[in-house]
Amino acid sequence: MMQATLRNHPSDPKGELASRTLAMPADTNPLGDIFGGWIMSLMDSAGKMSATKQAGGRVVTAAVSNMAFLAPIKVGDTVCCYTEVTRIGRTSVTLAVEVWVLRQGQGERVKVSDAEFTFVAIDDDGRPRALAAESLPAVAPG
Amino acid sequence: MMQATLRNHPSDPKGELASRTLAMPADTNPLGDIFGGWIMSLMDSAGKMSATKQAGGRVVTAAVSNMAFLAPIKVGDTVCCYTEVTRIGRTSVTLAVEVWVLRQGQGERVKVSDAEFTFVAIDDDGRPRALAAESLPAVAPG
Amino acid sequence: MMQATLRNHPSDPKGELASRTLAMPADTNPLGDIFGGWIMSLMDSAGKMSATKQAGGRVVTAAVSNMAFLAPIKVGDTVCCYTEVTRIGRTSVTLAVEVWVLRQGQGERVKVSDAEFTFVAIDDDGRPRALAAESLPAVAPG
Amino acid sequence: MMQATLRNHPSDPKGELASRTLAMPADTNPLGDIFGGWIMSLMDSAGKMSATKQAGGRVVTAAVSNMAFLAPIKVGDTVCCYTEVTRIGRTSVTLAVEVWVLRQGQGERVKVSDAEFTFVAIDDDGRPRALAAESLPAVAPG
Amino acid sequence: MMQATLRNHPSDPKGELASRTLAMPADTNPLGDIFGGWIMSLMDSAGKMSATKQAGGRVVTAAVSNMAFLAPIKVGDTVCCYTEVTRIGRTSVTLAVEVWVLRQGQGERVKVSDAEFTFVAIDDDGRPRALAAESLPAVAPG
Amino acid sequence: MMQATLRNHPSDPKGELASRTLAMPADTNPLGDIFGGWIMSLMDSAGKMSATKQAGGRVVTAAVSNMAFLAPIKVGDTVCCYTEVTRIGRTSVTLAVEVWVLRQGQGERVKVSDAEFTFVAIDDDGRPRALAAESLPAVAPG
Repeated sequence: MMQATLRNHPSDPKGELASRTLAMPADTNPLGDIFGGWIMSLMDSAGKMSATKQAGGRVVTAAVSNMAFLAPIKVGDTVCCYTEVTRIGRTSVTLAVEVWVLRQGQGERVKVSDAEFTFVAIDDDGRPRALAAESLPAVAPG
Repeated sequence: MMQATLRNHPSDPKGELASRTLAMPADTNPLGDIFGGWIMSLMDSAGKMSATKQAGGRVVTAAVSNMAFLAPIKVGDTVCCYTEVTRIGRTSVTLAVEVWVLRQGQGERVKVSDAEFTFVAIDDDGRPRALAAESLPAVAPG
Repeated sequence: MMQATLRNHPSDPKGELASRTLAMPADTNPLGDIFGGWIMSLMDSAGKMSATKQAGGRVVTAAVSNMAFLAPIKVGDTVCCYTEVTRIGRTSVTLAVEVWVLRQGQGERVKVSDAEFTFVAIDDDGRPRALAAESLPAVAPG
Repeated sequence: MMQATLRNHPSDPKGELASRTLAMPADTNPLGDIFGGWIMSLMDSAGKMSATKQAGGRVVTAAVSNMAFLAPIKVGDTVCCYTEVTRIGRTSVTLAVEVWVLRQGQGERVKVSDAEFTFVAIDDDGRPRALAAESLPAVAPG
Repeated sequence: MMQATLRNHPSDPKGELASRTLAMPADTNPLGDIFGGWIMSLMDSAGKMSATKQAGGRVVTAAVSNMAFLAPIKVGDTVCCYTEVTRIGRTSVTLAVEVWVLRQGQGERVKVSDAEFTFVAIDDDGRPRALAAESLPAVAPG
Repeated sequence: MMQATLRNHPSDPKGELASRTLAMPADTNPLGDIFGGWIMSLMDSAGKMSATKQAGGRVVTAAVSNMAFLAPIKVGDTVCCYTEVTRIGRTSVTLAVEVWVLRQGQGERVKVSDAEFTFVAIDDDGRPRALAAESLPAVAPG
């Protein structure tokens, strides 16, 4: 995807589309908006799918920082998570995760949340696994 | 998206990416594979998001046909639904929905299911709503 | 059950009662009615229970066709799935599945959906399994 | 239903079939069997459907007693709840609820749980509602 | 915890805090209040956590009695389960379980439910396991 | 609670117990451990319950930082969230949230995660609400 060109416009998501789903009533908080914990779960899954691909195998969530909730998600919104690898360590992958919604599946596109997730690649015994050389050059370390 | 070019390759999905999610243990059947009902729900949501956009407003599921399950979905697979509008009626939108997985989030890409969904546009009172003229030209009726 | 006599009345379900459950708020779509995907899951489970019994062992969903949604299901409705075996192949069982509701658990009985499901019998390794002779005569092939 | 005749056989369920569902992996406890809380939820829903019909309108759970868990429910079992009204008060309906499973959907039929539930009929404001005269004669008060 | 002193006040919970959670919209019944089955599940989990600790290992639910629902739980309430061991048998632990809510997480404290749960200690093969001598003196048998 | 004294021991949780629950199979990730997104949801709910009480009314999640996952949560663990208010702004409450488990409900006590959550108090229209004077002195601003 040609993200570099997309970024000239401030209202465009950064990175590639990692998850896309429909916000349902089962995911609401007592206020009737989508529950913050559900949004966090969604970002974690989106980041995990991208980090798994980058790391060439299983990863676990190690850290989350700078998570901000900018606007509520409403029932019926289409919810998209975008991920961009920002740093690759010896055994870890760090990604920027952004959440954007399409209001009621067809209206205005709005950024509702972002955060930074770090995942650690693990082997079959659950121990940290060094990333293969070929995964590394894909991104310049931040 | 340049779908036309993608279709030359038989192993490529048809249409645009409508949903993308991670298959979790909570969604398994007694055999340990992903539950067929969960896959149907996913296809319904994916189709609904695309039909809502096409119809410029709320839609409800009216019919499903030709749904086939070609291969199991495994826990840990990345699951993608692709949709392509195949027919637009006076109040309805019909889409082809395909489900593809990326095995364990990073391996082989496999088509696991497809179906045809028809949604009906509804107004605020839940009655069928004629589609606006501008939605119609987007696709040549099948 | 004396299904033969029941069928004289057009407003009676066909087949035997395969599942019965209460529609809950957690299963609603953004419109407040029961989510189409949940209804599909219910039909899949109902069909699977009946096909498992018919096949004398494990089955997986292979195909769904002619699924129609005739009326919405409301929170609080009692939801009943009826199944009737319509065809038995060498390794497969096809059933008609109908969904009926009792409005708010005590009012009018309404047919809300129907579909045709085909399940394939599998062995312990997940491979298609030929149905035992004794399962076959139960139904005249359609 | 002619329950009186059914009861001659000790291995038959008492009452009418109020719910029927498939036990799924999402409902397991840490031991891998079906979670006790899920079974209680199922009995509550089954009792509620039957009590709603008996009371001719909305009911809420008021009390549960003598609930026993006799055998585990396994993933893949078909789970049936049977209910029988045992007492009708001025505003309440008491039912015996039994849970039976068909092992792996096709094997041995086993009683796994039973309990006594009391529901109270309520009006639109949530206050206890006297049962209509016509509901009363259906059962001789216990 | 100094429960003994707390009990002088009739409006205080008996026992120790075993679970604490937030009531969410996904757990509602058709009336909009929290589903009775969810409350039963919560009490079962709370009792199980306390019984596991008392028994020094795995337990399964064996019986429930005297469960009463005194007031509805509302979405947004903080829900607390308190447990107190009331009887220890050769292989079983019986506890009183009380459910209290803090209305909307910050208002009035109200008792909404109570019940008596009996759990049986099991070994790795799922058979009843005699409780170790050291578990017994913790509570005078009721 | 006398947290000051507890903190002398490095292996004790900081703050007060805000949520306590049992880790179930439905909450696992593809590795069989508890899903990171579920843990985040739990911390969000725990923080929200404490912030609601502190703010004397409704709050929404505004930001999360410094979230670390130190050890996996296993099915069957008792999971406890502790919260401690660290900063009170004009309309916001910031808390440290720690997650501790009791392995299999009765073994070793282990810290598995921590993070910092900021919630904003809102009025009935969802707009930020200034905290009442009486909420402020409870904690010295950080």
